[in-house]
Amino acid sequence: MIRIIIAGPRGRMGREAVSLVHKTEHFELVAVVDRINEGKTLADLEGFPPLSVPIFTDLERCLQQVEADVLIDLTTPEVGKIHAETALRYGVRPVVGTTGFTNEDIARLTALAEEKQIGAIIAPNFAIGAVLMMKFAQMAAKYFHDVEIIELHHDQKLDAPSGTALKTAELIQAVRPAKAQGHPDEKETLPHARGAAYDGMRIHSVRLPGLVAHQEVIFGGDGQTLTIRHDSFNRASFMSGVKFSVETVMHLQTLVYGLENLIE
Amino acid sequence: MIRIIIAGPRGRMGREAVSLVHKTEHFELVAVVDRINEGKTLADLEGFPPLSVPIFTDLERCLQQVEADVLIDLTTPEVGKIHAETALRYGVRPVVGTTGFTNEDIARLTALAEEKQIGAIIAPNFAIGAVLMMKFAQMAAKYFHDVEIIELHHDQKLDAPSGTALKTAELIQAVRPAKAQGHPDEKETLPHARGAAYDGMRIHSVRLPGLVAHQEVIFGGDGQTLTIRHDSFNRASFMSGVKFSVETVMHLQTLVYGLENLIE
Amino acid sequence: MIRIIIAGPRGRMGREAVSLVHKTEHFELVAVVDRINEGKTLADLEGFPPLSVPIFTDLERCLQQVEADVLIDLTTPEVGKIHAETALRYGVRPVVGTTGFTNEDIARLTALAEEKQIGAIIAPNFAIGAVLMMKFAQMAAKYFHDVEIIELHHDQKLDAPSGTALKTAELIQAVRPAKAQGHPDEKETLPHARGAAYDGMRIHSVRLPGLVAHQEVIFGGDGQTLTIRHDSFNRASFMSGVKFSVETVMHLQTLVYGLENLIE
Amino acid sequence: MIRIIIAGPRGRMGREAVSLVHKTEHFELVAVVDRINEGKTLADLEGFPPLSVPIFTDLERCLQQVEADVLIDLTTPEVGKIHAETALRYGVRPVVGTTGFTNEDIARLTALAEEKQIGAIIAPNFAIGAVLMMKFAQMAAKYFHDVEIIELHHDQKLDAPSGTALKTAELIQAVRPAKAQGHPDEKETLPHARGAAYDGMRIHSVRLPGLVAHQEVIFGGDGQTLTIRHDSFNRASFMSGVKFSVETVMHLQTLVYGLENLIE
Repeated sequence: MIRIIIAGPRGRMGREAVSLVHKTEHFELVAVVDRINEGKTLADLEGFPPLSVPIFTDLERCLQQVEADVLIDLTTPEVGKIHAETALRYGVRPVVGTTGFTNEDIARLTALAEEKQIGAIIAPNFAIGAVLMMKFAQMAAKYFHDVEIIELHHDQKLDAPSGTALKTAELIQAVRPAKAQGHPDEKETLPHARGAAYDGMRIHSVRLPGLVAHQEVIFGGDGQTLTIRHDSFNRASFMSGVKFSVETVMHLQTLVYGLENLIE
Repeated sequence: MIRIIIAGPRGRMGREAVSLVHKTEHFELVAVVDRINEGKTLADLEGFPPLSVPIFTDLERCLQQVEADVLIDLTTPEVGKIHAETALRYGVRPVVGTTGFTNEDIARLTALAEEKQIGAIIAPNFAIGAVLMMKFAQMAAKYFHDVEIIELHHDQKLDAPSGTALKTAELIQAVRPAKAQGHPDEKETLPHARGAAYDGMRIHSVRLPGLVAHQEVIFGGDGQTLTIRHDSFNRASFMSGVKFSVETVMHLQTLVYGLENLIE
Repeated sequence: MIRIIIAGPRGRMGREAVSLVHKTEHFELVAVVDRINEGKTLADLEGFPPLSVPIFTDLERCLQQVEADVLIDLTTPEVGKIHAETALRYGVRPVVGTTGFTNEDIARLTALAEEKQIGAIIAPNFAIGAVLMMKFAQMAAKYFHDVEIIELHHDQKLDAPSGTALKTAELIQAVRPAKAQGHPDEKETLPHARGAAYDGMRIHSVRLPGLVAHQEVIFGGDGQTLTIRHDSFNRASFMSGVKFSVETVMHLQTLVYGLENLIE
Repeated sequence: MIRIIIAGPRGRMGREAVSLVHKTEHFELVAVVDRINEGKTLADLEGFPPLSVPIFTDLERCLQQVEADVLIDLTTPEVGKIHAETALRYGVRPVVGTTGFTNEDIARLTALAEEKQIGAIIAPNFAIGAVLMMKFAQMAAKYFHDVEIIELHHDQKLDAPSGTALKTAELIQAVRPAKAQGHPDEKETLPHARGAAYDGMRIHSVRLPGLVAHQEVIFGGDGQTLTIRHDSFNRASFMSGVKFSVETVMHLQTLVYGLENLIE
């Protein structure tokens, strides 16, 4: 049985995480850390299962009173950073889903984890399918040097391309020889048809109502193509990564940044 | 049995057409019209089946000497125009695969076909799958006003987007209310990621070695998407349209421009 | 402004319909018909917007007291049938989303609609994308006689193939010459790899967690394939069909069964 | 410059290999081994570039007279086995594209390669895209335990499922916990819709004219799917694997069976 504290239980990811821990047999929710509601229990909050799990507004006090193995942190970049350090000091393994860690933060927390001989996981993206897609794309780029990325999202998304598309392109760039793709004399008869250029490869962003979050990485070579596609249909897609991280962090003796570094 | 003359037998499409007519039971090749080789037969030319089909360098003389039902013309825009008129004057139905016909050309040839009470087909695109894709896209655009086009071709193609993508966009524009798609505040963090704009919709051109000729039209609506995709793997894809046209032209009493107008 | 009564407001489809009518500018919700809650208003029920829309347990009494243009019925097959008839007698156009109508039911209701000179729509499937997919598949089958259907659903679905896949196969069967597809000597080295047979075509059912409801119809011909795919991500996909039906029924003078018969 | 002998130059793969070696700058074709044509040169054979490369009918005599680095063998299982051993004895690295090697064969040839301190590659499948697809599928199966395979081929293919689909299923079986997929109460209303069963997963074989050779491996998890697809459009797809193998074998000191074991 893994004893778990969740920080940020009322956010969208937090609610999914409570539900995940609740329904997983070998997981036990021992406390939650919230900005408000000190002294209440989860059963007092609307939209939660009737669990007599205590709510703390301060992680340190929580760790002094409750025995736990893992802290799942789904708060904000600023808070997540502090929580990770506090948890490690108390010998509790942090699994953090926020971004904004600098290289110095990572180094400091890694040293602390190793000193304590326990694991820690910081994961900007918990969707295992997306992490695998990026890892496979990087592996394939060693053998196929021509690649284009198509990412497709709902039309309420403001930025193009998506963060995942950019991250994928970065990972590919790191391993393939620089290459300007397409015919050297190609010509756009309608401007921008060939999409965005990133180190010689092309990225295309599709925005349509009905879509959720999808990405396709297409590699082309002599007489063949290889396509890796991830479709995310809802937030539940993040929870398998949270579950995997909680189980994995128990066996680590250091900090790992990015789920791609846990995949063999 | 439909008796057929082929003009332009030595081009890539022409060779496929000779092979198609040869292997189709109810088709008979009665003559070919070539720029050279007057007086020879097809058996004298390299790379053709050993058929004693006569070669003429002049269509008019060919029509005076040979009884035929249909002329398949796979020459050039200039020649195709003249051939279509000549064939109609001799009561032979033209099936023409060249482009470049003006509205006046079409009007004049239509009048001639109706006077002679025979059919004529002019088809800029013989790939029935592509024609159906365009027709379905136009039909769907009445019900889904949000649409993006992704066309994918080998990386030797010089122009982007493809002619078929532009034609598809035109057909959609003709039926849907004008609409600027995407979020009004969307922002390209990498320039051109959102592709080319055409009347508010977006067109994306992918170029990779290994690809042949492919197009996907994606419609998005509340909670759903509808995708129509055509994959053309080789030139044989044009031949089913030629066959369909030869069979159909026998039952027409007028000229039809574009296979999409023959599809019910 | 179209004045609308909704029958069955507390079901899953019903709730979506209330939300649709509420947010559509030229629609007005004038009453709901529920099995219980007589005399209350929608504002009294949990999970609804605070609308002072009256609730009736009897459609006939509702129609006597409230002026309406359209009845959206999302109840059960038995009730839907009675409601359709009652609405027509009162000059209100029924838009019915239930199944189970016999040919006799359709004939009787059509006669009644034509006598009253008003429209009526009965639609077993309101997802316009699915309806278009089926219509396009039927059209394509006239030109491509080789076709396979792949339907993909979540792994909680009990029956295989899906109703939509069977309906698609039926529509194709109605127009294409009978044909046994695949090589006459083909051999399954692992039993059933070629899927289910339906009039010579093949249907494949994929079941995986994460999937929602998807179908792909693939046509193959010389050197080309044509693919028509529908992805339904959530129940909202039905609402565009309900909206379209409400708008369309206002211009009809007869009953139409199946949205495919409204698509031009 | 890598000096290459090709065995089996007149087969379909062999012709492609001659063309590959001819057009690759740092490759040199120094001899070919054919069943006939002893004493002639490649220039004497129809359909080859005019190269004065000598033809031998016996590999051993060829190796005695010609200095070479690599033997590309595209003959038959029986001959390939003998050629691999002969080449190794003469210090020439074999790159063999035939099947039929037993575990004993592999062990004996590995010992010989290591004794000679040179590389050897035996590759039942040279299409790198297909090899990557299989490797990625195996890696993904550790994280997603639900998977279905859809393979799509032209309708002249006799066996279903394809060898690649079976090999993929085997590789997945080797790493995932045994699992019966789908709902335990699922029911086929049309027999065999759920395809072939292999260790609890399902395999579906599509056969249509126009298709070439394609495979899709779909993994499903909470709220997401991950799809890996390989499309092979023509035999050129094998040649990038041959090129990769020739370059790689130069740096090996042992035998590697299967390109998947060379991919990092």
